[in-house]
Amino acid sequence: LLPPALDELARLLGRLRGVGQKTAQRLALQLLDSPDEYLTSLGASIVGLRVRVRRCSQCRGLTEQDPCLLCTDPRRRDDVLCVVADIPDQYAVEASAAFDGRYFVLHGLISPLDDTGPDEIDADRLVERAGGGRTAEVILALPPSPEGEATGHYLAGRLHEAGVARITRIACGVPHGVELGFVDRVSMAHALSRRHEVDK
Amino acid sequence: LLPPALDELARLLGRLRGVGQKTAQRLALQLLDSPDEYLTSLGASIVGLRVRVRRCSQCRGLTEQDPCLLCTDPRRRDDVLCVVADIPDQYAVEASAAFDGRYFVLHGLISPLDDTGPDEIDADRLVERAGGGRTAEVILALPPSPEGEATGHYLAGRLHEAGVARITRIACGVPHGVELGFVDRVSMAHALSRRHEVDK
Repeated sequence: LLPPALDELARLLGRLRGVGQKTAQRLALQLLDSPDEYLTSLGASIVGLRVRVRRCSQCRGLTEQDPCLLCTDPRRRDDVLCVVADIPDQYAVEASAAFDGRYFVLHGLISPLDDTGPDEIDADRLVERAGGGRTAEVILALPPSPEGEATGHYLAGRLHEAGVARITRIACGVPHGVELGFVDRVSMAHALSRRHEVDK
Repeated sequence: LLPPALDELARLLGRLRGVGQKTAQRLALQLLDSPDEYLTSLGASIVGLRVRVRRCSQCRGLTEQDPCLLCTDPRRRDDVLCVVADIPDQYAVEASAAFDGRYFVLHGLISPLDDTGPDEIDADRLVERAGGGRTAEVILALPPSPEGEATGHYLAGRLHEAGVARITRIACGVPHGVELGFVDRVSMAHALSRRHEVDK
């Protein structure tokens, strides 16, 4: 029933994760009612995206200039490296304002089921970057999932071999501000086993 | 923190209704990971949308050829006209397969607060189309809201004046398949006041 051009757009939008068929149709209809300038900007932005945005050759983060701003910022520490699985995770760490070192983005996690191994996450490059005495600490900020555990285990082994003195993982526990009745049992078990003394 | 091109795309996507800032960023990152052909198709589809899709000069529905397929389909009745507020409503009526006449799309409802009056919904054109004895029935398939009521009331008056014999409204009641405990009280009141005899 939709005119072909609208149907085609709805089908293209429907290929995005989290966009169902109904939502795609609604978005397509909304775009049809949008100003021409908006459609031109949005279309050009989508087409030009991959031309402008690349991976930083040092940290594999996203950037329009290489190396990226996080790798070149002189106010950040050079001797601490934070390893993250993907870009949203990197931004979550950065948003915490609790880290001022450099990053390394894996763009994935080791997962035999998905055919993702050490090469896909560029483990060699990480080891090369972190090794050689330049890095005092590597923080593994990987998700608390089986893939996150496996990847962390593998990388810790490689980084120890390469002589990195201190390899750490972010703490797992109850999230801030949540009602404890809603905390899942794995997080609660972690929070209990990693409990620490309260200062007098 | 996002590279400018990605930030710009996220901001453009975030202007769509129902797309929050987090979702817009997630979509922008997903687009960055999409194949070039997909991005080219999607961008071209968005830019070309308004060039290809127009409003039908007869029913104001969406179409790439004028008049639209629904207006020219010889298997549809010419003497019954269904008035709908917008395109999703038209498609909902069409999806019911319970209507085989022609449509008229208002693209809005009369709403003094939003500065929408009879001109914005092209009431004169509807009256001209439905009047003159050609149309036996006009079905007002308008939403059960204050604006829908006001628009229906206004249009019914104009259509009666123009000599349309039968003007009807779609029934309001409890939706099919819902648990009655979840039905809102207005729908339940409608369903009760419009109750009908059960055949023996």
